[in-house]
Amino acid sequence: MILAIDVGGTKMAAGLVARDGTLACSRRVATPQDADAETLWKTLTGLVAPLARGLDGVGVGCGGPMAWPEGEVSPLNIPGWRGFPLRARLTARFPGLPVRLHNDAVCLAVAEHWRGAGQGSDDMLGMVVSTGVGGGLILNGRLANGGTGNAGHIGHVVVEPEGGPRCGCGGHGCLEAVARGPGLTAWALRNGWEPGTAKPGDGTYPEERQVMARVLAADARAGDPVAVLAMRRAGRAIGVAVASATHLCDLDLVTVGGGLSQAGEPLFGPLEEALREHARMGFARRVKVLPAALGQEAGLIGAAALLLAGDTYWGTSGA
Amino acid sequence: MILAIDVGGTKMAAGLVARDGTLACSRRVATPQDADAETLWKTLTGLVAPLARGLDGVGVGCGGPMAWPEGEVSPLNIPGWRGFPLRARLTARFPGLPVRLHNDAVCLAVAEHWRGAGQGSDDMLGMVVSTGVGGGLILNGRLANGGTGNAGHIGHVVVEPEGGPRCGCGGHGCLEAVARGPGLTAWALRNGWEPGTAKPGDGTYPEERQVMARVLAADARAGDPVAVLAMRRAGRAIGVAVASATHLCDLDLVTVGGGLSQAGEPLFGPLEEALREHARMGFARRVKVLPAALGQEAGLIGAAALLLAGDTYWGTSGA
Repeated sequence: MILAIDVGGTKMAAGLVARDGTLACSRRVATPQDADAETLWKTLTGLVAPLARGLDGVGVGCGGPMAWPEGEVSPLNIPGWRGFPLRARLTARFPGLPVRLHNDAVCLAVAEHWRGAGQGSDDMLGMVVSTGVGGGLILNGRLANGGTGNAGHIGHVVVEPEGGPRCGCGGHGCLEAVARGPGLTAWALRNGWEPGTAKPGDGTYPEERQVMARVLAADARAGDPVAVLAMRRAGRAIGVAVASATHLCDLDLVTVGGGLSQAGEPLFGPLEEALREHARMGFARRVKVLPAALGQEAGLIGAAALLLAGDTYWGTSGA
Repeated sequence: MILAIDVGGTKMAAGLVARDGTLACSRRVATPQDADAETLWKTLTGLVAPLARGLDGVGVGCGGPMAWPEGEVSPLNIPGWRGFPLRARLTARFPGLPVRLHNDAVCLAVAEHWRGAGQGSDDMLGMVVSTGVGGGLILNGRLANGGTGNAGHIGHVVVEPEGGPRCGCGGHGCLEAVARGPGLTAWALRNGWEPGTAKPGDGTYPEERQVMARVLAADARAGDPVAVLAMRRAGRAIGVAVASATHLCDLDLVTVGGGLSQAGEPLFGPLEEALREHARMGFARRVKVLPAALGQEAGLIGAAALLLAGDTYWGTSGA
């Protein structure tokens, strides 16, 4: 069994993943807000303690940036961890076991390639469009890491070079600045969106930002005109970035997951429209865009794949 | 000795390349214009005949697009070859010898990585900015081909998504549409450029398009204000595309060759300016941009590397 861990700004999840990629069980806990490094670490060790028997290894996905493959993490959304040696601490906590750690968006891409919509693709980009926009790149059937483990940062492909919105990375006009959930809901609210046109469930709409994006997605699906325009804005920006990535990396497939992808046609329609406008050469026209097939479990499954299919997804030598 | 061949729309070149990557000798001939497939083939066989003794293999760079690794070529600038089985014909012409063929822009990138400005880089993009804008991608120390051998098409990364100029690929707003030599000289002429401000040599300026771009580059270097603005337009567009490629592929180096790169500071200054505006994350800030180090011989040296360093640059299995 592999202990798989997924560390994010709002929750930490852990589970046991079998050799065939099935998740045997999982548990989760809210990430303590404004907590110091050791409080965060105690929350994590408390989460995993009940799962820590008969393990063959530990795989971890964590928000970036990070020093990779060393696994010193500084997740943007977890201010208490800056240069925190998560991989080394887990190695000390689980002596004798291999511990492997990668960017959470990379783990999602790996999961889609290993057990999701990307099975059988040799050259794909796995995207997640949520609070941020991230991804992972599979080339020639293996995970491409780039020089520092940061390959796959599709969120910072430039889609509005002059005059585009400022991005959290310090640049401007990045795909993430246009299409990230919080940016998109802010844009929609500025343009008169009243959350809840779709009125799903009991009609309560938590203020939490990622959930807002899901409400926006649901409203777009239900036909709210401003929500539809917001999704169109995001979809076209994603389509442009996917065209660029396809030309540069000769991809056959792009998977799109995350909260915004729940919008369905209002997102994927404009995405396809922009992609087909820009990707006209024969080799580029073959690229397919599919919704991610795995749900909330994807992060854990991808983290486990770093060990269970390490030849494919763990390219660093000797680490 | 490797027989190296470089097939372009204006000239065909051939040479003998030794195991260490040095070019022992070379010859060239103008590509017959408006010629049929067999006339083109006879021109090529005539060119290589004097070099065809004691060979260990044949390496070819050719304008795209092409079916790869089959080597059926349809070079945009050579209308007489459409689906021409260049690799198969060369294999029949040189029985018993391995013949390997790739995109000419890929060969230039391979040459820079093998023996030029990219030596020692594990993750680089080799660009050529000339009549077209092309490139080749090295990831994890090896040539990345993508699914159909078309990885590296930096010229079709989108830099002006809405309202950008039409591109020869059928799309719009591609880097190539903005920064290719002929587009740039046309833009400069429309804006009042009078070729020859720099007045190099005897002051005659051939109408041939690639040469016009070199004149524009020389004029920019000499301070002609419209030529400087044209180079600024190209340089910023290249910088945006390089930022996107760096984020997506986690590159440490980009080399820029081709006629336009002769402009020097008027091109590289705005390129760096735009790149540094858009590439702000730690991992992306480390990317360096260097002029290509090899000159006219680069295409031949890269073609030879497909055989002389096949483990690194010829990834296709069994072909």
